Amino acid sequence: MIYDLIIIGSGPAGLAAAIYAARAELQFVVLEKDGISGGQVLQTYEVNNYPGFKNISGYDLATSFRDHAESLGSNFVSFEVSSITRERDKTFHIKGEDGSEYVSRSVIACTGAAHKKLDIPGEEELTGSGVSYCATCDGAFFKNKTVAVVGGGDTAFEDALYLSRLCEKVYIVHRRSLFRAAGSLVSLARRAENIEFLTDMVPKEIVGTDGVVSSLTLKSVRTGTESSIDVSGVFIAIGMTPNSELFSQITECNKEGFIITSSDCSTQMPGLYAAGDVRTKDLRQIVTAVADGAVAVSSLVKYLSE
Amino acid sequence: MIYDLIIIGSGPAGLAAAIYAARAELQFVVLEKDGISGGQVLQTYEVNNYPGFKNISGYDLATSFRDHAESLGSNFVSFEVSSITRERDKTFHIKGEDGSEYVSRSVIACTGAAHKKLDIPGEEELTGSGVSYCATCDGAFFKNKTVAVVGGGDTAFEDALYLSRLCEKVYIVHRRSLFRAAGSLVSLARRAENIEFLTDMVPKEIVGTDGVVSSLTLKSVRTGTESSIDVSGVFIAIGMTPNSELFSQITECNKEGFIITSSDCSTQMPGLYAAGDVRTKDLRQIVTAVADGAVAVSSLVKYLSE
Repeated sequence: MIYDLIIIGSGPAGLAAAIYAARAELQFVVLEKDGISGGQVLQTYEVNNYPGFKNISGYDLATSFRDHAESLGSNFVSFEVSSITRERDKTFHIKGEDGSEYVSRSVIACTGAAHKKLDIPGEEELTGSGVSYCATCDGAFFKNKTVAVVGGGDTAFEDALYLSRLCEKVYIVHRRSLFRAAGSLVSLARRAENIEFLTDMVPKEIVGTDGVVSSLTLKSVRTGTESSIDVSGVFIAIGMTPNSELFSQITECNKEGFIITSSDCSTQMPGLYAAGDVRTKDLRQIVTAVADGAVAVSSLVKYLSE
Repeated sequence: MIYDLIIIGSGPAGLAAAIYAARAELQFVVLEKDGISGGQVLQTYEVNNYPGFKNISGYDLATSFRDHAESLGSNFVSFEVSSITRERDKTFHIKGEDGSEYVSRSVIACTGAAHKKLDIPGEEELTGSGVSYCATCDGAFFKNKTVAVVGGGDTAFEDALYLSRLCEKVYIVHRRSLFRAAGSLVSLARRAENIEFLTDMVPKEIVGTDGVVSSLTLKSVRTGTESSIDVSGVFIAIGMTPNSELFSQITECNKEGFIITSSDCSTQMPGLYAAGDVRTKDLRQIVTAVADGAVAVSSLVKYLSE
């Protein structure tokens, strides 16, 4: 059977795409790696910024998206994709680890991205209890508190500037004395009264007291001496790794690996679309991932008519 | 007082912007014309495609967005804006009909758009009972039925192609014999087996039976004779009028009047952003309006730091 569409991944983007594909009566299936929906949302304790739900756990929000998609007749299959090719007849062939294959006329990549980790003691245990990878998502929990942002790129500086409006004090911790971030962002941070720079410093440990972050231990790259700063939150902004390996053979990705897309979620390969965190975009949030799913289906319905 | 942000309009885009602005601790206020939130959503009987809510009335969805924004401390003011200017100190001055004024460092235009009407008998009475202005929203209600699409532009053809996958038969009704739509779309529609063209025809009346659409009366522009086609749905796709008059003096709009924006919702005027149906975009849906609200706030937080 040749499907109209295969959706790869079942985070918010993939689930929204399923809702729109079902309503468009497409013949489609959602392939998910772990037989579980939600993607990064599943790891989120509390979601306060998906409009319509004041306060919901990541698990419950993911479940409500999945129920919605299933109520419209979406099919989900546990399937670990090993390769995708586009044949001369323009169909996509999606092969699994076990040699089985799906064939479809279009594909939406909804495989998401993962935040890079520091891999230091305390990081994993205190994630959600003071350790965060998203200032826009979690900043509001740190009002009038002192936090550290770890990183030296644009995202680290944007996070620090965002947090400087909310927090009493923001440290920027970076392992070098020079920053990759745009000079304009660095200048803005230097002018902010409550942002302090700690350069040539490497985080060694995130320390918790009663299960929540209380301090961050740093080691000087130059002198090797260790020091500690009292913080309630540590925002780790050292980059994201998009799950785009499968697609990098058939379409263009940028230098960080994000799939290059137009505003209509089309990629440079006809019939291949990308939605959510795996694509190039301005803001990575649940609500923008969900919107991408809708936009991608709307775009590909036109493509399928061709 | 100089606000960080004034949000003009309280449909889904404005309400999502309020949620994100509140979480970013901005000093802001939402100005709404009628003292009521929701915009076009309020006129929608049933919403099935906002992810997370399988089936909700437009009124209830708008109320859940508003409750969410209010729970975070957003302020709403009934205020009819008569003019907006940007002064040399880069502040926006928003004047009301009564001479009062709000001053802010940034503005998000969330004033929406209205579907153009045919203004024929039956149209208003049967809206939501077979008359629709959005194929993506309502197409699923017309599975295996016969419908008419009125219009000759890209949207009319995109709607007809979308509906042709769902419906038994789709008529395209147009007052001329030539179409404004892209030639490629017209060719695709001509190749579709279940799309029939009725050109040089003007809709005269939408007829209902037991309160739902049963037929559409047409008049030939050439001969003046009237005829009738049996349809369960009439999709009116003759364009939208964006509510952008207030902003057209201070930023660029396209020829249909939509505010020209980048993917980050910024306009060509620094400090002015646009979100939702009033901006240039690929797909006008509740979920994309809501995403715009989030993206616009994220963008302007960077602007405010400058």
